[in-house]
Amino acid sequence: MTAPRWPDVRGILFGADYNPEQWPESVWAEDVALMREAGVNIVSLGIFSWARLEPTPGAYDFGWLDRVIDVLHEGGIAVDLATATASPPPWFSRAHPASLPELADGTRLWWGSRQAYCPSSPDYIAAAARLAGVMAERYGSHPAVRMWHINNEYGCHVAQCFCDASAAAFRSWLRSRYGDLDALNTAWATAFWSQRYGDWEEVLPPRVSPTWRNPTQQLDWWRFSSDALLEVFRAERTAVREHSDLPVTTNFMASRFKPLDYMAWGQEQDLVSNDHYFLGEDPAPEVELSLSADLTRGLAGQAPWLLMESSTSAVNWQPRNLAKRPGQLRRNALQHLARGADGIMFFQWRASRGGAEKFHSGLVPHAGIDSKVWREVVALGAELRSLAHLRGSRVHARTALLWDYEAWWAVELDSHPSADVRFLPAVRAYYESLWRAGITVAVVHPDADLTSYDLLLVPSLYLMRDSTAAALTERVRAGATLVASYFSGIVDERDHIRLGGYPGALRDLLGIRVEEFFPLAAAETVQLSQGGTATIWTELLAAGAAEVVETYVDGPLPGVPAITRNSVGEGVAWYLATSPDPATLTRVLVTAAREAGVAPALELPAGVEQVRRGDTVFVLNHTDRDVTVGGTLVAAGDVAVLPAG
Amino acid sequence: MTAPRWPDVRGILFGADYNPEQWPESVWAEDVALMREAGVNIVSLGIFSWARLEPTPGAYDFGWLDRVIDVLHEGGIAVDLATATASPPPWFSRAHPASLPELADGTRLWWGSRQAYCPSSPDYIAAAARLAGVMAERYGSHPAVRMWHINNEYGCHVAQCFCDASAAAFRSWLRSRYGDLDALNTAWATAFWSQRYGDWEEVLPPRVSPTWRNPTQQLDWWRFSSDALLEVFRAERTAVREHSDLPVTTNFMASRFKPLDYMAWGQEQDLVSNDHYFLGEDPAPEVELSLSADLTRGLAGQAPWLLMESSTSAVNWQPRNLAKRPGQLRRNALQHLARGADGIMFFQWRASRGGAEKFHSGLVPHAGIDSKVWREVVALGAELRSLAHLRGSRVHARTALLWDYEAWWAVELDSHPSADVRFLPAVRAYYESLWRAGITVAVVHPDADLTSYDLLLVPSLYLMRDSTAAALTERVRAGATLVASYFSGIVDERDHIRLGGYPGALRDLLGIRVEEFFPLAAAETVQLSQGGTATIWTELLAAGAAEVVETYVDGPLPGVPAITRNSVGEGVAWYLATSPDPATLTRVLVTAAREAGVAPALELPAGVEQVRRGDTVFVLNHTDRDVTVGGTLVAAGDVAVLPAG
Amino acid sequence: MTAPRWPDVRGILFGADYNPEQWPESVWAEDVALMREAGVNIVSLGIFSWARLEPTPGAYDFGWLDRVIDVLHEGGIAVDLATATASPPPWFSRAHPASLPELADGTRLWWGSRQAYCPSSPDYIAAAARLAGVMAERYGSHPAVRMWHINNEYGCHVAQCFCDASAAAFRSWLRSRYGDLDALNTAWATAFWSQRYGDWEEVLPPRVSPTWRNPTQQLDWWRFSSDALLEVFRAERTAVREHSDLPVTTNFMASRFKPLDYMAWGQEQDLVSNDHYFLGEDPAPEVELSLSADLTRGLAGQAPWLLMESSTSAVNWQPRNLAKRPGQLRRNALQHLARGADGIMFFQWRASRGGAEKFHSGLVPHAGIDSKVWREVVALGAELRSLAHLRGSRVHARTALLWDYEAWWAVELDSHPSADVRFLPAVRAYYESLWRAGITVAVVHPDADLTSYDLLLVPSLYLMRDSTAAALTERVRAGATLVASYFSGIVDERDHIRLGGYPGALRDLLGIRVEEFFPLAAAETVQLSQGGTATIWTELLAAGAAEVVETYVDGPLPGVPAITRNSVGEGVAWYLATSPDPATLTRVLVTAAREAGVAPALELPAGVEQVRRGDTVFVLNHTDRDVTVGGTLVAAGDVAVLPAG
Repeated sequence: MTAPRWPDVRGILFGADYNPEQWPESVWAEDVALMREAGVNIVSLGIFSWARLEPTPGAYDFGWLDRVIDVLHEGGIAVDLATATASPPPWFSRAHPASLPELADGTRLWWGSRQAYCPSSPDYIAAAARLAGVMAERYGSHPAVRMWHINNEYGCHVAQCFCDASAAAFRSWLRSRYGDLDALNTAWATAFWSQRYGDWEEVLPPRVSPTWRNPTQQLDWWRFSSDALLEVFRAERTAVREHSDLPVTTNFMASRFKPLDYMAWGQEQDLVSNDHYFLGEDPAPEVELSLSADLTRGLAGQAPWLLMESSTSAVNWQPRNLAKRPGQLRRNALQHLARGADGIMFFQWRASRGGAEKFHSGLVPHAGIDSKVWREVVALGAELRSLAHLRGSRVHARTALLWDYEAWWAVELDSHPSADVRFLPAVRAYYESLWRAGITVAVVHPDADLTSYDLLLVPSLYLMRDSTAAALTERVRAGATLVASYFSGIVDERDHIRLGGYPGALRDLLGIRVEEFFPLAAAETVQLSQGGTATIWTELLAAGAAEVVETYVDGPLPGVPAITRNSVGEGVAWYLATSPDPATLTRVLVTAAREAGVAPALELPAGVEQVRRGDTVFVLNHTDRDVTVGGTLVAAGDVAVLPAG
Repeated sequence: MTAPRWPDVRGILFGADYNPEQWPESVWAEDVALMREAGVNIVSLGIFSWARLEPTPGAYDFGWLDRVIDVLHEGGIAVDLATATASPPPWFSRAHPASLPELADGTRLWWGSRQAYCPSSPDYIAAAARLAGVMAERYGSHPAVRMWHINNEYGCHVAQCFCDASAAAFRSWLRSRYGDLDALNTAWATAFWSQRYGDWEEVLPPRVSPTWRNPTQQLDWWRFSSDALLEVFRAERTAVREHSDLPVTTNFMASRFKPLDYMAWGQEQDLVSNDHYFLGEDPAPEVELSLSADLTRGLAGQAPWLLMESSTSAVNWQPRNLAKRPGQLRRNALQHLARGADGIMFFQWRASRGGAEKFHSGLVPHAGIDSKVWREVVALGAELRSLAHLRGSRVHARTALLWDYEAWWAVELDSHPSADVRFLPAVRAYYESLWRAGITVAVVHPDADLTSYDLLLVPSLYLMRDSTAAALTERVRAGATLVASYFSGIVDERDHIRLGGYPGALRDLLGIRVEEFFPLAAAETVQLSQGGTATIWTELLAAGAAEVVETYVDGPLPGVPAITRNSVGEGVAWYLATSPDPATLTRVLVTAAREAGVAPALELPAGVEQVRRGDTVFVLNHTDRDVTVGGTLVAAGDVAVLPAG
Repeated sequence: MTAPRWPDVRGILFGADYNPEQWPESVWAEDVALMREAGVNIVSLGIFSWARLEPTPGAYDFGWLDRVIDVLHEGGIAVDLATATASPPPWFSRAHPASLPELADGTRLWWGSRQAYCPSSPDYIAAAARLAGVMAERYGSHPAVRMWHINNEYGCHVAQCFCDASAAAFRSWLRSRYGDLDALNTAWATAFWSQRYGDWEEVLPPRVSPTWRNPTQQLDWWRFSSDALLEVFRAERTAVREHSDLPVTTNFMASRFKPLDYMAWGQEQDLVSNDHYFLGEDPAPEVELSLSADLTRGLAGQAPWLLMESSTSAVNWQPRNLAKRPGQLRRNALQHLARGADGIMFFQWRASRGGAEKFHSGLVPHAGIDSKVWREVVALGAELRSLAHLRGSRVHARTALLWDYEAWWAVELDSHPSADVRFLPAVRAYYESLWRAGITVAVVHPDADLTSYDLLLVPSLYLMRDSTAAALTERVRAGATLVASYFSGIVDERDHIRLGGYPGALRDLLGIRVEEFFPLAAAETVQLSQGGTATIWTELLAAGAAEVVETYVDGPLPGVPAITRNSVGEGVAWYLATSPDPATLTRVLVTAAREAGVAPALELPAGVEQVRRGDTVFVLNHTDRDVTVGGTLVAAGDVAVLPAG
């Protein structure tokens, strides 16, 4: 990653998506006045303006945008200007029907909502790059414009397209990866099921088929599809840079979005930005928010990042869109800030009156400014100004959680031992145990430099490259503590089994050998020897060099080791062969952390979060009761911002 | 609506669909003899006879139908003759493949079941009108034929078609509605998500798309699709009337059928007829039946109506088709009669031996006439003859429940605050509370004349026109009592939010202001201040002029008003900001009814229904125990038919 | 069925699918050495080798297969050689896109997994027959090759195709069945819903349609689709027999596979072979295995059969793939043997390293031969050699369970009284009661000779031909005991109701008359008069000649008979009008068995299976505790193989 470049805006960035074209021009002046009242210092502009800016092919109407930008500039509001390419206008789709996406079953997706384009459509890419260039040429020198917002949430609705153009692009990508068909046939193991390819033209996307498609084909399809959208991003960025050297970003959707390899995408951003929305019905949504923030920081190479979108209260796209309770808007914002955000922005400035997102909250709600939401927005703006010193500071973490999108894609392919083994829940369990212990985690790619981390977590890293196994071994030998879960290190990057006993990549490091998986039935629970329980998975494991920490009391494998610990060089490698209950998992992880010299926060009440950024400690009380932490009273729902002791 | 016109048949109409073409001609004489034994005075004929009447294009075979009608006429059985257009023959579909319907995802529906036609197919409409004309010309003067049964259950399987012909028809309809594209762009709020249309040819049905389609486009699509089928009805009616002035009807499927705006369709019928089938697994199917009957009466402008189809026992299309218990056939029939039906008819005369509906009950079951069903049919025929004096009489109701298909369509669009807010359950809760209190309800369109109603119910009327808000306000000022539920009066007819605080259309009338919705999580329950509970919904509400009747004890908004009451002029406007438990809802509604001078039935046992039609009171005991009501013993499952006291 | 012909291999066949093309040639020698160590005497070869054998159209590469067969022959391993047609190569599908299958909704299925061909594709059939002939010509005389494995698991993914070529083939099949359209119109009851066909070209497969397709069309579609694949089998077999007279088979998937009429297919095999996989999450998977084995024996006319595929431990295609516990591999194998298998084979020899089935267990697991699985394989091979005397011997059974694929297809068509009436669960309940009583069942087609059976079970034989009713009546008159369930004998082979009271085909034999079905609601339970309970179904039944054994205490029909017993001639006919709890069902069935002179095993502990083959009695302990049966101690999980007393 190149060094981050940020827009020329002072203090913590604070603002929102601004969609003035949805409102009469007479409202704009009031908008700017209210922005100033709230302390907004930047807005994202033009994201969905293509149809308005280019109402018919090649005929532009920039007058209204000129006026908006001028009004904002007069008000001292900076602009994060979009390339306006997020959704092509109806005329574009009608003129280029081959640009419409197709599902795996051949269903064509039509215009009438948004993002109705095939990521590999040459027509779309050309048109998007052209518009991006026109925007940069016209506005790149306007003093209000400080950064570029390339497109918007790439792939959020159409991350993969199965049309013929995509098939051709996939073949090109595969030619680059494999060189010749023999290499592809070997990697894809096409000797199985008579799948051998004799001509490149025979190779297709994994369209619907009588039964499971080739797993390596599927894995390469995930890789290709992420790369195809990355090419769109690059084409737009290139067009912008011909006219402007302002920083560029595109807004990610970490942590729940699977299709894009954001670890790779992060390398291409001047600054990493992210959209995060609170999941009302998650049993612990505050943990999910923290994980998203820590992941985004990982995508930024542990540098500060920008929260590009979040909500002041309810969203509109969940089955039941829970509103934020009083104080929650502030607490969620400070949570992002504490975990490395240098800007807090929202979708959107003014709640829409019509359209599919009209029930999404905004900074100015339907009820107007005599409202809880507006008052909290104004207060947040003031508080962020008081925290301007945090900008640029780093979050403290000595624990690394290995996160690899390729491993995520691979572990969730079909036809596996158990459909209950899912990437996010596995990662979340490990993450949540540490969160509750007050141990801050850095989310890192397996190829990252691990030397600054003393505790290494490897949950469900099913696909593991040789280099990763070597790096982990080296780091443990040098004194680190590693904790690996079952179904890690099982296959190589081709999704080929590492033979000779599982987990092939980590067998020696862990000092064990597994000869057979014994997944548990749905809802089956087994007892562990120290009183805990476990679910999902067991395996026929023989401890070699490793010490047996726990065994199964019952289930399919009574007496067989469930948790082991292996001393290697100066370090230790733990292995959890099952999915233990949260208390057991926490006990193991805290023990491992202490071994690694990573101390948990003392006596942290349940539901209270503690994290340090720079010289500031944040204590966030997500509960509805007052608590005392380290002598500080933190009221229900409140946040204490303290100098590091 | 024009004045109702009824067929020239004496007494309560009693009969069934009759499909003689499914049986050897030798059975017909026995059929007529049995009809006479049962007191059948009318049958519906020819509904699915197209393929038999026109076995090849343009070549008609009327001989068998001539003979059937003559046999019926000789037996004194009147004929409700169908236009025979309900299902085009295979030769038609094969000759006109463009007439086959298409789903939103492009899937084509084939012939081989029934109703395989696109409602906007010019070929189908022309062929249906031609056949309707041929039928009317040939049989319009036959003395047995007394009315016309246009088509059958329009839209029951294909209420919407997304093909190119439908797209063209949709555009024509939109041109009529909006005049020009600017008006459409404004109404559809196309500034959102770059959806602006620059050419009419760009406008499409809401086919599958990457994400939510434009909500106003969807709403207009519901409107158009109802109108498109209404045009088919009109084309057939016009063809019939060229040759016959007998009354015409088409059979509705109220109350559960959503796609057709029966409030508009009712205006076009000489007499309103309805098909109703008992839902075995509904927790209170007798309430659902009553609601259907009351709604149908509403579609008929509170005039008598015809139950065109019902079942003597089980149907065949539910997952488990529960049979009617002894006595239930009579009780259900009298329930319809008590709520305004002037005729009780069934599908079908003789249970089929083959085909998809062979397990649907009939008047003559597979087992023959030595059967419970046949004996109950004969007894019902006799009892209906004894109730002939009811024909033409009116049902008494001073309570109006506002029902608007446009509001139904709008409230259930996607991307709303809570998927738990559904039209029918909301209406049902209010209706059922009153049903259990013995208060009879008139279901009326919001634009109806409300002057004869003292209690006005507004459950989930999310979309509300200005005229409705004005009429409700006027009626309350003049002394009526109104009860409105949450999520009523939120948007205008374009689905645009009424700004400034919810519910925009009713804020002043209710004397409250809501600034934010707080939907509850799935299965979440909150406590109310008077001991009850509530689910689904709460909201941040401030009482202005209104009195606070109940507040929330817990949940997201403790202390916030949940139920309010506002005195306006001579009347009162209640507001329920949540979905209370049935006991609480009943308490509020009965209190409001008493305020309105609408007295509930005294001491009505649970499961017992009371309703007055003309000078007759019906007491229907839906339970399996004997009860005493007003001094009258009503045995388990029995019905008392009493003179009004 | 012609007399069975078996391959020239001594003793019990023992082996596996062998896919050497997935491994480097250097591994082959080790493979053969290990096969010899395990006692493997036959392997199936070449099943998915088409793309390797014919890498481009018409250009064959047989060298590697020549070498593999030679290596096997040198090691004394016999070969079951496949026609290699199971999955056409990508080049074939690309060259013949019309050969790709289509779903009922028009979705095309692509290559990239396996079996991507339309069963009625002339191109596929020609190519498969050509390759089968080439294989037989080249290898028919090789001394290692002892039998032919035609194709593989016909229809497992594509049992029905709805494309235009299939439509044409369906029409040809219908012309053969019905002769003219009038006969088809009568059989399909097309007078219903205006479905009358006037031209053969109008007749289609039951593609997606607005609502339920014609039931007889659907039933004929099941018949046609089974026959279409049987034609593929015959084409391949014919091609093979031009060059070889070795025995041929194709591997079935009884008992859970519904689309193929294996009763008809069994007639066409030289030896019947079957694939069976243990269903980990079945509540009693050992019962399901036994039923599969007994059904397969029935497909073989009660002669020995070959277990062509099974698994040494977990499979890969269930949601959670439970591994086999220690000892289970042996116990399952002996279960098949005890119920008539003359060979025990597995998929596959060596667990794959890549591809969709890499997590399917093999004889040589990923961990290698230092493993539980390998040790159990070697032990099983030794034990099978000690049981060679069983080969050719017969299983003892005096109870016949009538099984008819046409009845299965018909009873599960849509639009029936209750979706809870399903064929397999109904059969399983009867089967499991007898299994637990130690009574061995012969599964027979209704047209089979029943004279050797004293107890006849008729569970859910909804469709019943006149001949079946006559045969059952004759057998009961002659002294047999029959037990029939509700919803048996309802329709004829056209799916037309047998009128006059249910069950039309068995009314007289059972001495009862049912006038109306009263299915129960979901999860509804009724009480029976002798203390048991029942679910799913009740009916309004009048006992004529029959004795009433039990009645309903509550539910919709209190006091109505639930179980009856009718003496007819020398025999007895029982009727169960409902679905009783297992204890009640067992009581009735054991009573009926004793009446028939069929004695249950005395004091068989729960979970213990007893079955006699030839002069050997097998006692299989499926529990985790030791038991004593007839004085013999059988350890937990163990199998006792005893001489018949």
